[in-house]
Amino acid sequence: MKIRICANEPTTTRLSQHRTRAPTPHPIARSNQPHVNSRQHYPTSNAPKKRQLVAKPRIAILGTGNMALALGKSIMAAGHFIAYGSRRPETKNDFHEAAGTESRIWGYQAAIDAGEIVIITLPYKEVAATARKFAESLSGKIVIDITNPFAAQPNNGQSGAQVTATAIGEDARVVAAFKTNFAATFEQPSDSTGEPREVHYAGDDEEAMTAVEELIKEIGFKPIDCGTLAEAVVLDHMVPLMIRLDATEHASSHKSSWRITAP
Amino acid sequence: MKIRICANEPTTTRLSQHRTRAPTPHPIARSNQPHVNSRQHYPTSNAPKKRQLVAKPRIAILGTGNMALALGKSIMAAGHFIAYGSRRPETKNDFHEAAGTESRIWGYQAAIDAGEIVIITLPYKEVAATARKFAESLSGKIVIDITNPFAAQPNNGQSGAQVTATAIGEDARVVAAFKTNFAATFEQPSDSTGEPREVHYAGDDEEAMTAVEELIKEIGFKPIDCGTLAEAVVLDHMVPLMIRLDATEHASSHKSSWRITAP
Repeated sequence: MKIRICANEPTTTRLSQHRTRAPTPHPIARSNQPHVNSRQHYPTSNAPKKRQLVAKPRIAILGTGNMALALGKSIMAAGHFIAYGSRRPETKNDFHEAAGTESRIWGYQAAIDAGEIVIITLPYKEVAATARKFAESLSGKIVIDITNPFAAQPNNGQSGAQVTATAIGEDARVVAAFKTNFAATFEQPSDSTGEPREVHYAGDDEEAMTAVEELIKEIGFKPIDCGTLAEAVVLDHMVPLMIRLDATEHASSHKSSWRITAP
Repeated sequence: MKIRICANEPTTTRLSQHRTRAPTPHPIARSNQPHVNSRQHYPTSNAPKKRQLVAKPRIAILGTGNMALALGKSIMAAGHFIAYGSRRPETKNDFHEAAGTESRIWGYQAAIDAGEIVIITLPYKEVAATARKFAESLSGKIVIDITNPFAAQPNNGQSGAQVTATAIGEDARVVAAFKTNFAATFEQPSDSTGEPREVHYAGDDEEAMTAVEELIKEIGFKPIDCGTLAEAVVLDHMVPLMIRLDATEHASSHKSSWRITAP
């Protein structure tokens, strides 16, 4: 299956050469290539845009919790191959049934190897160690960190996603996303206003940001670019408040959403 | 002028005695009395509520910027006495004209002395020093901190309002509020959805929280209790993102608003 994605004008010679090649391999599948962090160092805001036909990136999802299930079903429904990574995949038959048996449930390493985009949905306390353990495989891949520090908020001012990127190392291409969304909302991408819910996402890598933006649109949500990975700290903080206000304002529906409303 | 305000059941003997007295002085005007931090230590969520007739509290506003003007006009229109505090009140004739000449523009000390609730709208870098300088006068009074740390965010995990409270000292009764609201929205308390905009507020003192809740309602906004003063750190972080998204999503209208939308 082929789709068209919108990519920014090449910002380096390497990316430029890459972009003019045949559509296979997908431009985001570059795990063996050195990575240039294009978002921080090469602003492209005024650059013209090009389109090209590419395959839908294969998705690995580490973890088998509520968010993994909800997000995985939405992304699989949008036509992507999904491989879940689990420490004990042999015990996950019920999860596999719920997720859809077209998906795969493998160990972490096999899932990461299969994914062009890797989504980390583990409990926050396991994230840095897991990222460090699989750093070589995650390096250069687009990694979406949806995990929530809560009381483990790094108090040096960093975002949780920055900690994850540090654990992966120099070629990390981490995007913070889906932190401020309840699992129960994925089956219902528009809220009571009839408008798509916002997905807040942030990162330093322009190409990774574009890929995540596309993924958010594909599952029916509205991508809201919240800046760099450092600026993603606000998303970590917004999650406990979201949970609180869902309880106090919306009877713990787990279907309320953050939104910046128009004037 | 008299209004009825809703107060929680007394949580200490002192408060209880106070509440059963004649309606003058207003229960929040207790600057000479030792203060008990009721919100942290004496949860009252299941307590029955009482009502009593009290005068509208007099408001001091430190600062003469856009937020001081917008907030002051709204609160004065709701029937409160307003005294602005300025370092150079003699130079503020134009501001006084804009704010409405029924207001007063005095030095900091005179404004604080006149106010039962003191709203700090200074640049963040001046807040702690000012709070320390006038600590004796601010101690025991309800203080609303609307200031934004931005890049001066305390990176030990504290909220800016906690820093302000520490500067005032042991009897500080600080509430963080109005941080996540643009000045231009005060003339238009409902947004494009037709619903009142949210004012996020947080603090440790139950009586102060009730007074601020009442003030928010009086000017036509929806009070959203965001927890303790420590939890107010999220509001500090949400402000830069609000400014960013107002630019990227709403053409720098300065009239967009944060909202938790219903399912």
